[in-house]
Amino acid sequence: MAPVFQTEKTEGNARLGVILTPHGRVETPAFMPVGTAATVKGLTPRELWELGARIVVANTYHLFIRPGVVPVRRCGGLHAFMAWPGVILTDSGGYQIVSLNQLAQVLDDGVVFRSPWDGTLVTLSPKLVVSVQLEWGSDIVMVLDHCPPWPAGRRAVQQSVERTVRWARQSQQVFWEKLAKNDSFWSPPSRPLLFGIVQGGVYADLRKACATALAEMELDGYAIGGVSVGEPEELLVESIEATVPWLPTGKPRYAMGLGEPWQVVELVARGVDLFDCVLPTRLARHGVAYTSCGRLSLRRKELSEDVSPLEEGCSCYACQHFSRAYLRHLWKAREILGVVLLSLHNTCYYVSLMQRIRDALRAGEWERFRRAFLGHNRKGGEVWE
Amino acid sequence: MAPVFQTEKTEGNARLGVILTPHGRVETPAFMPVGTAATVKGLTPRELWELGARIVVANTYHLFIRPGVVPVRRCGGLHAFMAWPGVILTDSGGYQIVSLNQLAQVLDDGVVFRSPWDGTLVTLSPKLVVSVQLEWGSDIVMVLDHCPPWPAGRRAVQQSVERTVRWARQSQQVFWEKLAKNDSFWSPPSRPLLFGIVQGGVYADLRKACATALAEMELDGYAIGGVSVGEPEELLVESIEATVPWLPTGKPRYAMGLGEPWQVVELVARGVDLFDCVLPTRLARHGVAYTSCGRLSLRRKELSEDVSPLEEGCSCYACQHFSRAYLRHLWKAREILGVVLLSLHNTCYYVSLMQRIRDALRAGEWERFRRAFLGHNRKGGEVWE
Repeated sequence: MAPVFQTEKTEGNARLGVILTPHGRVETPAFMPVGTAATVKGLTPRELWELGARIVVANTYHLFIRPGVVPVRRCGGLHAFMAWPGVILTDSGGYQIVSLNQLAQVLDDGVVFRSPWDGTLVTLSPKLVVSVQLEWGSDIVMVLDHCPPWPAGRRAVQQSVERTVRWARQSQQVFWEKLAKNDSFWSPPSRPLLFGIVQGGVYADLRKACATALAEMELDGYAIGGVSVGEPEELLVESIEATVPWLPTGKPRYAMGLGEPWQVVELVARGVDLFDCVLPTRLARHGVAYTSCGRLSLRRKELSEDVSPLEEGCSCYACQHFSRAYLRHLWKAREILGVVLLSLHNTCYYVSLMQRIRDALRAGEWERFRRAFLGHNRKGGEVWE
Repeated sequence: MAPVFQTEKTEGNARLGVILTPHGRVETPAFMPVGTAATVKGLTPRELWELGARIVVANTYHLFIRPGVVPVRRCGGLHAFMAWPGVILTDSGGYQIVSLNQLAQVLDDGVVFRSPWDGTLVTLSPKLVVSVQLEWGSDIVMVLDHCPPWPAGRRAVQQSVERTVRWARQSQQVFWEKLAKNDSFWSPPSRPLLFGIVQGGVYADLRKACATALAEMELDGYAIGGVSVGEPEELLVESIEATVPWLPTGKPRYAMGLGEPWQVVELVARGVDLFDCVLPTRLARHGVAYTSCGRLSLRRKELSEDVSPLEEGCSCYACQHFSRAYLRHLWKAREILGVVLLSLHNTCYYVSLMQRIRDALRAGEWERFRRAFLGHNRKGGEVWE
């Protein structure tokens, strides 16, 4: 069977590659817009496709709770449910279950919590979480992981690593059992992929232990979890640097929940291939646009009569048709269209950034691109907020 | 100069016609989606165009207050500001100024009120309101009218009729003066149109007096105002019936702020050509869809696993791609996309209804269509809310 990840070119630790899935190829490095509840907030699938997105992230925990397993299955799986023709990666929700449910109990064989919607007691085991993702026709299935809160002591983190590795083994077992039965939405030779998640907090040796144990399992890809959970940015980068060397070079790497554009560039340089982040759509709801000169807030009064687009030369629908003056007007009037157009532009910004990164890698100009980009966009650079 | 309205066919009082404007033809009877703040709530202009809308309504009062005259002018007029390639009718806002500002003072030469945004004192005169609409490049300019509140005594309504007629004369004068200078966005032979507004409350003789006086002025079209302002439905229909006979048959008639689908059908039968109503987008924000069997609320629990579209056979983007189960999920999760898709479907429902009305008129089957439609859709018929 063909490898599910191929590296076309590398420059330093950065890689140009492609992931093969049942719903098509994902060129990496790639940004995955976040559609937690089976919708990338504010955007139609058509708008998302047109701006160049080919993969989105949905959240198994959120969708398991609402609408539940059955409606998605009845509709023919997650792709049909949300009308997304591209690739879907389903996060397990290991992080969200614990961070969003203060009373969640992490046990050796799963997580128990009360549904935030109706208070019923819910148990999610590693096997169930994988089964649900397969049943929904996910292209990239994530194992259930145990993500300790920030800050956490070494002992607690060690325990979470042990659980995460044990759960990954259980996940892998049920994954292949289900695939052998071949009773879902995919057809050979294409098959869904299974990604592991590396925990270990800010402890480099625990990161190494977790990454090494998961690497031995020969999963299809590896996520770096437990980052961007509240820790300072230096520790975040250190956690990633403590993990990547212990992951197999032939498998895609995914930094979960990241990040700002400059972080994405920094992490591509450290060998990361996949990113997901709520920033483009969340900032849109706060009236903030990404531009090549930093963030631009529609609160700025001088935009009232600014007839230029958010970003000169941007190909998105918002920039092709609307002025900053109009977008500021929509924002002031709290009109839905303002959120829609900003979400569209910001998501396009991230997707286009990844295209520029891939183009630079392909042309052998990655290092030059990286220096130029960080010169303009680093934290502390011009931010118009 | 060619007449700006041509009647192609009539059946009873119902007419099939076309209005000629600087931004194209409007086939009547027509429904105009409401874009008060220069945006039809929740929809991109592209979505609006694709579902078949060719004319929208914006509100001069609202836009005069926010964003103000200058930003719209700087952007090249209202069409460029909101990126709408079709026809724009700008309501004057006579109704909104008084209904939304309890302290508004209606004087003989205009209206004085405090801006709801910054408290400054604003004066809107009939001449200013027309000038602003022309400056913004509106296709159909509405005169400033004085709309009395409901209920209002005969004396107050009579005074409002006198003001409305006097203001219409002032509006017409400035309209032609400005057109003679030809200093705006249109080019001959196409020109913007000027519509008058008939007031008179529920008093048939005042309706007649107002309609007759305005008819003598040979305006380009006639709106029936002061309806759907809180009065019972019977009085609403009576007010329209008391007005239409006194309006010239060769000019388009516009029932302002109306209405439910069955009201639209009833009023087409009474000779009305144009409609505008916030219902399709407002109900969308409340999770309610229009269908051929009445309103359907997404609150209904049995929709959770309903894989059918909102309306079988509907050509809108929402019905072509999404199930009721998914739309209910979006509604329960308070996702923006739910509002967008329902707004799209409901607006498509109204626009398609007008197409069906025009098709029936063209085929000489209007009466049959009307009876069949009202049999299914009359108030008190099946409503799924």
